[in-house]
Amino acid sequence: MRLDQDVRTLAAELVDIASESGQEKPLADAIERALAGLGHLTVDRDGANIVARTHLGLAQRVVVAGHLDTVPIAGNVPSRVEGDRLWGCGTTDMKSGVAVQLKLALLAEPNRDLTLVFYDCEEVEAARNGLARLVRDHPDWVRGDFAVLMEPTDGAIEGGCQGTVRADVIATGVRAHSARSWLGVNAIHEAAEIMSRLRAHEPRRPVVDGLRYHEGLNAVLINGGHAGNVIPDECVVTVNYRFAPDRTEEEAQAYLAEVFDGFEVRIVDSAPGARPGLDNPIASAFAAIVGGTPQAKVAWTDVARFSALGVPAVNYGPGNPEVAHKRDEYVELAKIVEAERVMTSWLT
Amino acid sequence: MRLDQDVRTLAAELVDIASESGQEKPLADAIERALAGLGHLTVDRDGANIVARTHLGLAQRVVVAGHLDTVPIAGNVPSRVEGDRLWGCGTTDMKSGVAVQLKLALLAEPNRDLTLVFYDCEEVEAARNGLARLVRDHPDWVRGDFAVLMEPTDGAIEGGCQGTVRADVIATGVRAHSARSWLGVNAIHEAAEIMSRLRAHEPRRPVVDGLRYHEGLNAVLINGGHAGNVIPDECVVTVNYRFAPDRTEEEAQAYLAEVFDGFEVRIVDSAPGARPGLDNPIASAFAAIVGGTPQAKVAWTDVARFSALGVPAVNYGPGNPEVAHKRDEYVELAKIVEAERVMTSWLT
Repeated sequence: MRLDQDVRTLAAELVDIASESGQEKPLADAIERALAGLGHLTVDRDGANIVARTHLGLAQRVVVAGHLDTVPIAGNVPSRVEGDRLWGCGTTDMKSGVAVQLKLALLAEPNRDLTLVFYDCEEVEAARNGLARLVRDHPDWVRGDFAVLMEPTDGAIEGGCQGTVRADVIATGVRAHSARSWLGVNAIHEAAEIMSRLRAHEPRRPVVDGLRYHEGLNAVLINGGHAGNVIPDECVVTVNYRFAPDRTEEEAQAYLAEVFDGFEVRIVDSAPGARPGLDNPIASAFAAIVGGTPQAKVAWTDVARFSALGVPAVNYGPGNPEVAHKRDEYVELAKIVEAERVMTSWLT
Repeated sequence: MRLDQDVRTLAAELVDIASESGQEKPLADAIERALAGLGHLTVDRDGANIVARTHLGLAQRVVVAGHLDTVPIAGNVPSRVEGDRLWGCGTTDMKSGVAVQLKLALLAEPNRDLTLVFYDCEEVEAARNGLARLVRDHPDWVRGDFAVLMEPTDGAIEGGCQGTVRADVIATGVRAHSARSWLGVNAIHEAAEIMSRLRAHEPRRPVVDGLRYHEGLNAVLINGGHAGNVIPDECVVTVNYRFAPDRTEEEAQAYLAEVFDGFEVRIVDSAPGARPGLDNPIASAFAAIVGGTPQAKVAWTDVARFSALGVPAVNYGPGNPEVAHKRDEYVELAKIVEAERVMTSWLT
């Protein structure tokens, strides 16, 4: 794989090296070989995760990350060019972004130290996620002052992301036969208070690092009762709190305990949000080059994995998210060129 | 089987003819044979259901009913007498009651026309219930002005019973991703209103035919939600309304529709209550002989099957309900004698 060829050709070549989740090795090998000849980079590898870094001693370090895996191929490999588009599995999600990353590897004198992260298993269960593994096992490889994850955003900045906590809020009662309901205490009736609080809840919409987030506190599951003739002694309301990245997981959990004061609250799972860091000068320079208005990302994404290291992060990539994972996945060739221009201008 | 022997011996003999649900034929045969010799009775049979009636042209007709079946035998047949008790499967529930019924068959000149109903399959699913079959297929056999079901009540009158309606009350919404909850409408939050109405509901405690009932309106099941990250579009609250016998099933269902106005209400199942009829002179004479204070029956029982025919009904029997269905089931011998005395005094 030659890194000095046109970014569009490079993207097509990446698509043609099939890399469904768990089978990224051939692609990782090709990338490792391509990077090996570049004297200004150190290259580290852990399984199919590859991290290439400059060490210029500059004041700031920028991390640019992308995943190597795709969803299962659906008769759409090898790639083909038709009209203004490159078609094939992974064109938008996210080998066109990886192609831009590889072009950045050629920058021998970037204006910030540069870390390029290529990771595996993004499209499958979180436990296998390559970026999570790097953050856990090799935090030094992936630390920086700001990170860009080149997931498909159609060339816009989607900043940070909200965190998520799920908790079971539990109303209790005393079981009885429903023919003599006054001998019991109905846990489902007690849960009315939980739902009233949910309905009365006013979600926060804070501005964090220049972007406005939009929280949500919702019941996602409710379950109570034993049989058609029994007054139930337990009703479990599973709530999902999506919180803006100005709160930590701990603060979010404490907030749930406060909202549902008087009820047992059991945390089921939890993941931090990510600050977008767009108030940082290097990030605002990036936003200026991209143009348009950066949007806060409300859904949880892999950018949050940088939070554990205190690295603010955004999504920015040439792909169109609406065609990701589809059989007729494509990327507009001009968007790949534009993303290369944006990233190169920003980093030189 | 000789009907002129002591009621206690007769009860023991009934216990010794095993009759688990579905296997009542030998016992029904024995009863049919014993009744056949009594010229003042007509005897009708449908499967293991037997109905014996006088036709004296009296102003009122009293129905005395009992089921022939028992729960599965648990090493407790044949019966044995020990101390003051008769031990064995069905002693309390309810062959001691059936023995009293059979003694009443000997009354050639009762003060009211008399109908004795012996039926099968009371201890199993409602669809097999012999009394329900008689009410449906032979209503003329079981009509009367007042009915006594000789289920174990420890020698007290338990009058009528409350009806029961189960309904699904459905809150709806609009599905969305929980990260962007404001794009949806949360059906679980909407269900808060259902639960508030349940919690605010004041149950009626009406006096019906001289007995005070106690209604109940309760959620017994609640179910909503699809997954931990989805705003749910449906939440189903299953409510159980136990209603006093001054309301019909139709009135009870209409009441639910009124309480949950604005929500879809789907009736799941329904069964009528039964009036106790204790304001009827013949019934108050019965209550006077029994003594004590008759209690309203709040749980649904087979007496309600008489409701379809407009026959008020009570439970009254010599057995102790607390030992029914137990391996060490027994009945106090003196209670059988007392029940025979009460019923005979009342009907002569």
